[in-house]
Amino acid sequence: MTMRSEIGEQPEVFRRALAVNEEPLSELAGRISALQFDYALIAARGTSDNAARYAKYLWAAHNGIPIALAAPSLFTSYQRPPRLDGALVVGISQSGESPDLIAVLAEGRKQGRPILAITNEPESPLAEQADMVIDIAAGEELAVAATKTYTAQLLAVAMLSAALDSETPGEELSSLPGHVESVIATEDTINAVAADLADMRSCAVLGRGYNHSTAYEWALKVQEVTYVLAHPYSTADFRHGPIAVAEPGFPILAVAADGPLFDDMMQLLGEVTREKHARTLVLSNRAEALAEARFAVPLPAVPEWISPIPAIVAAQLFTYHLGAIKGLDTDQPRGLNKVTRTT
Amino acid sequence: MTMRSEIGEQPEVFRRALAVNEEPLSELAGRISALQFDYALIAARGTSDNAARYAKYLWAAHNGIPIALAAPSLFTSYQRPPRLDGALVVGISQSGESPDLIAVLAEGRKQGRPILAITNEPESPLAEQADMVIDIAAGEELAVAATKTYTAQLLAVAMLSAALDSETPGEELSSLPGHVESVIATEDTINAVAADLADMRSCAVLGRGYNHSTAYEWALKVQEVTYVLAHPYSTADFRHGPIAVAEPGFPILAVAADGPLFDDMMQLLGEVTREKHARTLVLSNRAEALAEARFAVPLPAVPEWISPIPAIVAAQLFTYHLGAIKGLDTDQPRGLNKVTRTT
Repeated sequence: MTMRSEIGEQPEVFRRALAVNEEPLSELAGRISALQFDYALIAARGTSDNAARYAKYLWAAHNGIPIALAAPSLFTSYQRPPRLDGALVVGISQSGESPDLIAVLAEGRKQGRPILAITNEPESPLAEQADMVIDIAAGEELAVAATKTYTAQLLAVAMLSAALDSETPGEELSSLPGHVESVIATEDTINAVAADLADMRSCAVLGRGYNHSTAYEWALKVQEVTYVLAHPYSTADFRHGPIAVAEPGFPILAVAADGPLFDDMMQLLGEVTREKHARTLVLSNRAEALAEARFAVPLPAVPEWISPIPAIVAAQLFTYHLGAIKGLDTDQPRGLNKVTRTT
Repeated sequence: MTMRSEIGEQPEVFRRALAVNEEPLSELAGRISALQFDYALIAARGTSDNAARYAKYLWAAHNGIPIALAAPSLFTSYQRPPRLDGALVVGISQSGESPDLIAVLAEGRKQGRPILAITNEPESPLAEQADMVIDIAAGEELAVAATKTYTAQLLAVAMLSAALDSETPGEELSSLPGHVESVIATEDTINAVAADLADMRSCAVLGRGYNHSTAYEWALKVQEVTYVLAHPYSTADFRHGPIAVAEPGFPILAVAADGPLFDDMMQLLGEVTREKHARTLVLSNRAEALAEARFAVPLPAVPEWISPIPAIVAAQLFTYHLGAIKGLDTDQPRGLNKVTRTT
């Protein structure tokens, strides 16, 4: 039940993080704005890598910063790190303990680059390598599957974007705790959908743009907690090959947030639901998408740039209930530890 | 049978490309060396995106160039491209026709950045946006699933790396046609392994470092041609969560090439084969890895940096035979077109 209670803590985590991080992030944004860099190189693994996927869209679209995701083995096993001229080096890690991520930041430091760590452990070895640290302030997380630390990472990424750019309407973030409460209020619907899909052995998970991150994180949660094979795709990548796997009854989970990519997602949903007879589950804040799907979970009407936060909370609840219906230990999945140390 | 015959053409394609591209790539490398850039931004989709994954390791490790993979929707649907100061913009596409990739190169051009296209169609709209073009010279490809165009892209990426850096032993590339012939000579073994795994509905595909690309491309081929759900992972990412899906009998396909990451792969193979009783299929040029697996396909002893080429040829043959055993149309998989145009 720890996973479920940590999902439920999220509105409170957001209220606290919005309050305690406003001033430090404003100060940090001032320091970052004064730096010279052409792009950000982000090192992250697992759930934190999905927060990096969110930054890849948000920081690029709102702040003009291109994002490269690091290949940590170049810095560790191969001992052949690239030249980092022009890079702001960023590490994202809940625990701040994975040696390969620490190695990327250490190399950035050695090459004299500015280093930012985004972590729930501001005294961790990862944070020690950084000259700028964002404490995501999620509080201690006990369930092995990350929930509140993921959304707190997204919130930190979003708050930094807003602090860096006066065009980003940062005040929209203050609505998040309430919107997430409204998602949690749909739990009965979500539980019923999970029961309807309880027999699934594998599925595809679709999202694009800002919610590319949501597709990846939803698929990761489903695999960690329910042992169902789940593969995330952008709608574009799905069309470039994997769409061939969609046969009648195949479960396709999708996030269809209002925004410039909504029509593209609607078209694909129509194809796979009507022509291929896939079993589609859609999380959306638009009625057309909910009507198109076999199973529907409504999301609150929020601007697309913050939609990954309520969307993943709905996905976390779906995953938790799917695991519970299957009779699994949702707090301690087999084969996983809370802190994963890869080299 | 077109897919099978195009797999078989690869040694000849490599011989031709090595001959016709040596001089143009040497000249191109001179131009690129004279440019000022901090990193390469690569735009690609589907199979070509896996060639970009190879470049992400090779160009970083051998040429010191960090790689960012573009998010094309920022340039199209969102109309919010990032600032590209410091970028060499690269497009990789077999057909050179996908509008979203063309948009990334067009934006790079607008921002005054140097543009490189790597394509099998040097007169394509993608190539028109570039000031430097590499013709991968694979010849016309008729089967929907890309085989020889993928390896010709890898070869172009490798030849450019060698031309840019005198430390990269480019002469090692000349051995590739012969090594790929030796892979094709193991076709009976590969066919037998495909028959043993013909019942699989889903699988994980593991590779790391240079062969991260191989894992992704193998999984994509399996999905396109056999409709088996296949999910690629680096060994590190697999440990950060998805390892939970490995239950007894679960098929795990892996590439274990000799190199600094070999021991890491061996350890994971031991875990999933012995402790989790997964059905492991390993492609490797080291006997220990072949002995550890339930099913084994030997690869030739080549330096790790070029190992993705013979490795994917073995994977292509496996995929072709799996599709043929299942009685599928391996030349024209359902739901796919040769040229995919995404926006």
